Amino acid sequence: MDQLTIIKIGGNVIDNSEKLHHFLLDFTALPGKKILVHGGGKIATELGETLGIEAKMVDGRRITDIETLRVVTMVYAGLINKNMVAQLQAKGSNAIGLSGADGNVIKAKKRPVVTKTYGKEGGPQAGTVIDYGFVGDLDEKSVSAITLDSLLKADLVPVLCAITHDGEGQLFNTNADTIASAIAVAMSTLYETRLVYCFEKKGVLKDVNDDATVVREIKANEFEALQADGTVAGGMIPKLHNAFEAINQGVSAVYIGKADELAELASSTFGTKMLK
Amino acid sequence: MDQLTIIKIGGNVIDNSEKLHHFLLDFTALPGKKILVHGGGKIATELGETLGIEAKMVDGRRITDIETLRVVTMVYAGLINKNMVAQLQAKGSNAIGLSGADGNVIKAKKRPVVTKTYGKEGGPQAGTVIDYGFVGDLDEKSVSAITLDSLLKADLVPVLCAITHDGEGQLFNTNADTIASAIAVAMSTLYETRLVYCFEKKGVLKDVNDDATVVREIKANEFEALQADGTVAGGMIPKLHNAFEAINQGVSAVYIGKADELAELASSTFGTKMLK
Repeated sequence: MDQLTIIKIGGNVIDNSEKLHHFLLDFTALPGKKILVHGGGKIATELGETLGIEAKMVDGRRITDIETLRVVTMVYAGLINKNMVAQLQAKGSNAIGLSGADGNVIKAKKRPVVTKTYGKEGGPQAGTVIDYGFVGDLDEKSVSAITLDSLLKADLVPVLCAITHDGEGQLFNTNADTIASAIAVAMSTLYETRLVYCFEKKGVLKDVNDDATVVREIKANEFEALQADGTVAGGMIPKLHNAFEAINQGVSAVYIGKADELAELASSTFGTKMLK
Repeated sequence: MDQLTIIKIGGNVIDNSEKLHHFLLDFTALPGKKILVHGGGKIATELGETLGIEAKMVDGRRITDIETLRVVTMVYAGLINKNMVAQLQAKGSNAIGLSGADGNVIKAKKRPVVTKTYGKEGGPQAGTVIDYGFVGDLDEKSVSAITLDSLLKADLVPVLCAITHDGEGQLFNTNADTIASAIAVAMSTLYETRLVYCFEKKGVLKDVNDDATVVREIKANEFEALQADGTVAGGMIPKLHNAFEAINQGVSAVYIGKADELAELASSTFGTKMLK
């Protein structure tokens, strides 16, 4: 089986043109077949504010109303995706930018409307109906592995933004981490896939204040012990939980590390590697 | 040789959701391989105005400054392209939206800065330097026929917006008619190509006020006589000139007609057909 690397970058890379330039150089230099997934960044928020679109929040999460969907479609699928593709082309990657609607590569379902059973202090009361709006959730049938593979076979490098569709004409906003994971799982029937999450830190740190204490490797059976001794805590718990879920569904390895160290992936000294 | 149909629609279809819906249904029903090219429409102008971007004109033409380029990239490649792709998917076309940067399908060169030799009343004076900004011009090497063909062979339907790139990281605004024509010419080495321009009228009319007087067919050697007798006049002259140029470069036939009559293409009663 050929190797396929799926890399996800977030706003901290996208919003910094210097960082983005270096990341795209390293991404281009990375050998083998690959897919890039990018999140949003500040531009969509700024454009929304300039257009006077009020950010509606519920339970600490932003609601994607129709105006917000228009803005993220313009910024993610248009401005960010096409500029990133043009930069990758300049660096020698034959990139092709995609939303989930393009080639039907990622089909989503509208997140169901929920009624809160319990109230929350300072949050929604019991009985409150919550509709996150145009947010698309994925399932095991969402990714069209065959179409992505036909692009890879044509020596193209798919670059996905976090916009999906329902197959009935409706676009959605979908979490980019979730898209990256779903692609890695779906492609693992055709390739030996590794999934790379770039975030702010160098990886899982034994001492959160010391970048030199990166845990190089975590096996599935070590995860519980690392939670118990506090090495993995807070926001890292769901991140690693999702990583091991992807591994359980066929992904060979999941890496978490810093975008500006991507080149280290070749020498296996990039961030924290999670495996079976 | 297989047949390939390249269809270009403009703002009058894009800005009217009812018209667009019917057009996309007819487009989907059209048998054989096909490529859609779309222009802009009012949305980009409206967004530019909302954002307070002043439209800079020179010599009657709009200049694409950096702010305008941002807006058209968002609107053409993001909002319009992705919504159109999602609608085509809903109707059964496996559409894939592309800018010229995606897969390097259309590489352009920045329109050269010109110095006016002669002045014009109410226009720029002699010696005025005119820079149209981020406008990309095409040449005979602009279109990557191989990449477009690999998408067609994967049973995808390319949907192109009027954004191109220079291969060095810069995006451009390019005329959508020109893109459609360049694609038709480039693909004619691989397919028997026909190029369809949808515009406001039913075709070339003998009597401009009578829709029943469509000239069904014009051969290259008849073009001069039709100009002489006034059947082809005004804005139609450059349109037909471009059509015959495409035919001279290998395109089998060029049609000009109304978007809502696209279904007639199958029975050869669509608009005006130009051929060798």
